[in-house]
Amino acid sequence: MIIPFHVQEMLRQVRKRFDAPADAPKMQPRMEDLQKLRPVRTATRKTIERFIAGFEKDAGDLSALADDATLDSAETYSANIENLIGTVKVPVGVIGPLRINGLNADGDFIVPMATTEAALVASYGRGAMAASLAGGVSTAVLYEGVLRTPAFVLDGILPAGQFVDWVVANIEDLKQAAEETTRFGKLVSLEPVIDNNIVFLLCRYTTGDAAGQNMVTIATSALCEHVAKHCTVPILKWYVEGNFSGDKKASALGLITGRGRKVSASVTLPAKVVEQALRSTVDDMLDYGRVANLGALLSGQLGAQAHYANGLAALYIATGQDAACVAESAVGFTRMERRGEDLFCSVTMPNILVGSVGGGTGLPSQSACLDLLGLKGADNGAALAEVAAAVCLCGELSIVAAMSAGHFSDAHEKLARKR
Amino acid sequence: MIIPFHVQEMLRQVRKRFDAPADAPKMQPRMEDLQKLRPVRTATRKTIERFIAGFEKDAGDLSALADDATLDSAETYSANIENLIGTVKVPVGVIGPLRINGLNADGDFIVPMATTEAALVASYGRGAMAASLAGGVSTAVLYEGVLRTPAFVLDGILPAGQFVDWVVANIEDLKQAAEETTRFGKLVSLEPVIDNNIVFLLCRYTTGDAAGQNMVTIATSALCEHVAKHCTVPILKWYVEGNFSGDKKASALGLITGRGRKVSASVTLPAKVVEQALRSTVDDMLDYGRVANLGALLSGQLGAQAHYANGLAALYIATGQDAACVAESAVGFTRMERRGEDLFCSVTMPNILVGSVGGGTGLPSQSACLDLLGLKGADNGAALAEVAAAVCLCGELSIVAAMSAGHFSDAHEKLARKR
Amino acid sequence: MIIPFHVQEMLRQVRKRFDAPADAPKMQPRMEDLQKLRPVRTATRKTIERFIAGFEKDAGDLSALADDATLDSAETYSANIENLIGTVKVPVGVIGPLRINGLNADGDFIVPMATTEAALVASYGRGAMAASLAGGVSTAVLYEGVLRTPAFVLDGILPAGQFVDWVVANIEDLKQAAEETTRFGKLVSLEPVIDNNIVFLLCRYTTGDAAGQNMVTIATSALCEHVAKHCTVPILKWYVEGNFSGDKKASALGLITGRGRKVSASVTLPAKVVEQALRSTVDDMLDYGRVANLGALLSGQLGAQAHYANGLAALYIATGQDAACVAESAVGFTRMERRGEDLFCSVTMPNILVGSVGGGTGLPSQSACLDLLGLKGADNGAALAEVAAAVCLCGELSIVAAMSAGHFSDAHEKLARKR
Amino acid sequence: MIIPFHVQEMLRQVRKRFDAPADAPKMQPRMEDLQKLRPVRTATRKTIERFIAGFEKDAGDLSALADDATLDSAETYSANIENLIGTVKVPVGVIGPLRINGLNADGDFIVPMATTEAALVASYGRGAMAASLAGGVSTAVLYEGVLRTPAFVLDGILPAGQFVDWVVANIEDLKQAAEETTRFGKLVSLEPVIDNNIVFLLCRYTTGDAAGQNMVTIATSALCEHVAKHCTVPILKWYVEGNFSGDKKASALGLITGRGRKVSASVTLPAKVVEQALRSTVDDMLDYGRVANLGALLSGQLGAQAHYANGLAALYIATGQDAACVAESAVGFTRMERRGEDLFCSVTMPNILVGSVGGGTGLPSQSACLDLLGLKGADNGAALAEVAAAVCLCGELSIVAAMSAGHFSDAHEKLARKR
Repeated sequence: MIIPFHVQEMLRQVRKRFDAPADAPKMQPRMEDLQKLRPVRTATRKTIERFIAGFEKDAGDLSALADDATLDSAETYSANIENLIGTVKVPVGVIGPLRINGLNADGDFIVPMATTEAALVASYGRGAMAASLAGGVSTAVLYEGVLRTPAFVLDGILPAGQFVDWVVANIEDLKQAAEETTRFGKLVSLEPVIDNNIVFLLCRYTTGDAAGQNMVTIATSALCEHVAKHCTVPILKWYVEGNFSGDKKASALGLITGRGRKVSASVTLPAKVVEQALRSTVDDMLDYGRVANLGALLSGQLGAQAHYANGLAALYIATGQDAACVAESAVGFTRMERRGEDLFCSVTMPNILVGSVGGGTGLPSQSACLDLLGLKGADNGAALAEVAAAVCLCGELSIVAAMSAGHFSDAHEKLARKR
Repeated sequence: MIIPFHVQEMLRQVRKRFDAPADAPKMQPRMEDLQKLRPVRTATRKTIERFIAGFEKDAGDLSALADDATLDSAETYSANIENLIGTVKVPVGVIGPLRINGLNADGDFIVPMATTEAALVASYGRGAMAASLAGGVSTAVLYEGVLRTPAFVLDGILPAGQFVDWVVANIEDLKQAAEETTRFGKLVSLEPVIDNNIVFLLCRYTTGDAAGQNMVTIATSALCEHVAKHCTVPILKWYVEGNFSGDKKASALGLITGRGRKVSASVTLPAKVVEQALRSTVDDMLDYGRVANLGALLSGQLGAQAHYANGLAALYIATGQDAACVAESAVGFTRMERRGEDLFCSVTMPNILVGSVGGGTGLPSQSACLDLLGLKGADNGAALAEVAAAVCLCGELSIVAAMSAGHFSDAHEKLARKR
Repeated sequence: MIIPFHVQEMLRQVRKRFDAPADAPKMQPRMEDLQKLRPVRTATRKTIERFIAGFEKDAGDLSALADDATLDSAETYSANIENLIGTVKVPVGVIGPLRINGLNADGDFIVPMATTEAALVASYGRGAMAASLAGGVSTAVLYEGVLRTPAFVLDGILPAGQFVDWVVANIEDLKQAAEETTRFGKLVSLEPVIDNNIVFLLCRYTTGDAAGQNMVTIATSALCEHVAKHCTVPILKWYVEGNFSGDKKASALGLITGRGRKVSASVTLPAKVVEQALRSTVDDMLDYGRVANLGALLSGQLGAQAHYANGLAALYIATGQDAACVAESAVGFTRMERRGEDLFCSVTMPNILVGSVGGGTGLPSQSACLDLLGLKGADNGAALAEVAAAVCLCGELSIVAAMSAGHFSDAHEKLARKR
Repeated sequence: MIIPFHVQEMLRQVRKRFDAPADAPKMQPRMEDLQKLRPVRTATRKTIERFIAGFEKDAGDLSALADDATLDSAETYSANIENLIGTVKVPVGVIGPLRINGLNADGDFIVPMATTEAALVASYGRGAMAASLAGGVSTAVLYEGVLRTPAFVLDGILPAGQFVDWVVANIEDLKQAAEETTRFGKLVSLEPVIDNNIVFLLCRYTTGDAAGQNMVTIATSALCEHVAKHCTVPILKWYVEGNFSGDKKASALGLITGRGRKVSASVTLPAKVVEQALRSTVDDMLDYGRVANLGALLSGQLGAQAHYANGLAALYIATGQDAACVAESAVGFTRMERRGEDLFCSVTMPNILVGSVGGGTGLPSQSACLDLLGLKGADNGAALAEVAAAVCLCGELSIVAAMSAGHFSDAHEKLARKR
């Protein structure tokens, strides 16, 4: 019996709905009777109602999506989405005030978090209370640079070398071509990576107060067009993104060099705060921290941390950020060290992609969340990134305390099992 | 000048707000005047109003969050969040009908996607049209098993060996202890990993139609309690999760062994569909695919794919899933191959964590989205996972086509620059 | 100036020998006048002399390779190499006696290490002295299983499922087919991994006292032949190795599941030993250990350790192991913890590939090294693996001490600069 | 039965030699009767004979190590090793002539490979023949820079920022301090990476014709001493290497940015050469290539390649390189593409660490191997790196052909089973 049981269980599960002769037709292409949605770019009450009327009857009652308030303001959403049929309501809880002593974020923040996972807000709130009782979280943006990485295919390794030569010689023109497309984006670094006849150009931009993913795409497209038009070395193919930048995914490149803003946040908790606010001890938390680092390394994580994704997803959704960027942002390193009798804890997160302008930040409820933070509009991008890191630090403190003291499961049982 | 320019630029950015003598006090702990929020578990109109009244005046107008409809139904959200102050409205667009020929999902699906990123729904919709014109996407759940990985600290390597021996000898009791806590969760595999005196137990569960993260935490906690109470080998410390499972983060373990449901989805597009629906060619898409794989590998991604996170985040938010799980789900491998004159494309995603029950699936607007899909409630978990993979396949087709034909940047310029 | 300086320096270096018009012909294929070596399987004095006579005159004096002793025993090497022209003499130093208290290795070992890097033997020797003064290294083989991972290409995802079904149903026959090819190899586990229409079979074998790489290749080939002949599901292609096993390369799979033998070694050093034998302190070593773990994680290493490769390469070369396996073996995790006043240190290495029989173990000088260890021939494979881990532990102790106390560079200056 | 079988088998294996009550004493520290070797720095016939006389009697006959030729030239080895007791004789086979059309290596090379693994030389020789029949391998060094990454511990995140400021302001002094220690090493780039209060400085050097690992250690030590002496920001601790550089281990950093020399090698094989010299077909090789890439990605390798380590270990040992560097060098990406009817294949290897001077290159038999290559002494470092990549390309061609045509196992059976 050398087939692992979980494989056999997998087969049993699959077989429950799997009968090869019967399933074979089901798995085949079927060409008949395909309906089409008529796509809509600019939504109105009417386009939404037309969509809904067109759906099959068993689509159920969609009024929870297409409520009156949404129908009335349908056009508001048109720059952010296509084929609008309504809005999904994600509950928002608050933590705080979270005291942040940062280079950019400085003050006591009420932080809105949008989630449907019970215990999450309570846990982050507990961490925020502990951090604030210790005098607050120190934060600093260490770096910024959003990456786009176009790829160029040349005719061989020599032309690839000549191509890089040409790029370096013409860098000022390329920078100008890129920056002409944007008021805020600045190309701050361009680095070639050669794999035989293929050259990736790692283009890093600062993007002002916007997260800037579209901005850098458009700028890089202009840069590439300029290269394609003027370069004296024949280019076989080029692509505005060679899947090298780590956009929307965890990558070692992002961990090492950063993408978006790199932020560090730290706090030193007095032993008493650990005991009273977190119901654990400095030693217990350090002991667990060592085991958790070991687990991270042995299971092949990128960096080592407990659950940045929870805090990031909740903050990103509440404030109109691109929630898909959680995939790349939820990477970094949580450190815990003894400092005398106290507990030092830091998070350093190299890929925070947030903006205080652009994306979904201008939509009504998202805008209200930024208002609540006091970080709406221009000049708040860096502060918002520091808040994101500070929030993640609170989450790490709380979960490590819970794990180390054996409370993790209790909390979930109590708060989540009501459903 | 051997300091890279981007470092100097970073320093310039940081220095803009950085003046060591002036900043030093700003970065220090401050203990005075910290207010506290009074936490709230069960929300009502009153608790929300109390929160808002307590915020600083400059918090702006929060009525976009705390609208009347939300205030009226505040209690609805109490099992999903703490400290509720309102709801954030995330616009939902639809794609489809997406024809899926799956082991579990079988039919033509209207798929709701919640996002604030322009062009996303249009792009996925284009992919869905191409896939449906080709007869639909074939899908199959290949595996399921949600992982929890408690850690036990023993007194040395010999006791660690004895501990594993004891666990293996008592496995049926452990299974029973775990499964007594849940109607749907089944422990299907338990595998020890030893690092000297520390033992991680990789516990895999099937979780019925729920995503099951809380379920497996509670079950594993009971399992650990049983071990702690009965094990004849002295245990120094134990933790219900040793940070080994990959919960809420991308990991090599997840890529290799899967966590949640592993699903594969594929379609073969006739050349004509590639040209007409995707405005590219089979050769161009294959050429780009090779460059994109190279980019993925050289930048140290886990797996190789273009943007699963976009589709997953939009679907997870719309249907009440845990959006933080995007961090672990957005991992896998997209393959493209020539099949005669046609283009075969598949995605295989080992970490899809979705449920058709539990989490946020029962909230009104989220529930409506599941209704629209026809996948509300029991017996739909596996089908929902297949839909998630099929949607991601559509996204891959569309972005690869756009990249290969040079349309990627145009689309973003057209749809996103309205803001 | 946004091109990083190191890129410009790179271009300067490349340009030194790079002149596109002049180099273009140099980089082109040239078909004229290609000589061929006449390959030789069974070496004799005569075949070696014939080779040497055939080389261009400027090949220099090869008598240091083709010395008389080698020429006299040329045939000895014929089962280990083709086209023999002599032997390279790698100097062997010794460390020890290293006291090992292991499940398999038990005693005081004189360990031969073959290297040309000054300071290496001295450094490992220092670590061995410290470990022995502390009463010796505890070791245990935790797992064994050499992996081969054939790949099968099926016609789609349904046939892939049926194929796995067939394999599971016929597992006993497959096991028999594999094991008929070998006296010592046992197939202990077979686990399928499906990516749409491609199935990898993870076949794990125990291989007795041999490293077993050839053994598992031949056994797996027979297994595949059996599948190809008997399987009722049509197989489009199959390959005896799908590049999944991690053979000869570092991989997350190897880190997580092990390949070859997984061994843990540990020791607790009294503070006095740290100070006198390693000239550091417990606190200094722990402080450095935290920084070193951070460095490992942030730079994307697999596991976290200092320099296993040094010890492994030296031991593998000395004892006739496959030196290329250093690439996969040099992966694992070094832990350091305070135990009261003392320093606990462990290494856990999941991919040690060594044999006390087979490979180069029977060659005269390699065999002498195994003799010196007392681990020549049958029944010593597991003990040899434990020695390998114990040696690596000694190397970690010594380098961490040197780094923490600032002696690392001094040692290299003193021992290596004589050249 | 939810414990996987391979775990049970593991326990069975371990238990064979494992009996807790009996083993407990065996695994404990034992302090009695520990002998010590008297260490020797400068070896002579006499020191070797003294060592051997001191070993326990059952050490066997060591004359195969301590042969007369070695005893006579013992002092030769003293700058390369401590505690010398003899030399291990590793058989050397040759492949070639391998035609290389490179920026630095240009000509037909006879390549010596030291290995005890049967079939290795034959396989690489087959690849070399195919590449040469196609007109030779094109090669280019794309980059060079050996990394050392000292770490500095500061008092907090603000001092860390100030420290980086100071470093940038004083970079010319640091460069001078580093370069004063070496005639050949040049500091070409210095890049800081901050994790809260810890700063790693990524120092890249060109190292002339030496591999340069000691050179950069000594130079960086001087740089650090200069910082420690002059920096106005208080430094709590510093270490000459923060385990960030990837020295002696595979790392994502090395894959992405390179360490040592980055070299690309490529060849386009006519279909006829594939068929006649490699006994496969272009399509079959491409088909296998896709499966092999999939395997590499799904198992979490760094890059994707078949067996660089085999070629590198054999070449490094033969030519007196540091064999432990195989762990970091055996990383990169092998590409195969159809070019009309022909097969393009390239390898790009970012971490080749070789020197034509220094290390073991001056020892008699190693020097003879460099002579045979025509690459002995100054001005040959870059050419040697290109040879290493070209050799690895040959190995990839041969193994992919063998795998794709089903010959891999046969070859091993025929050549290796003689033993």
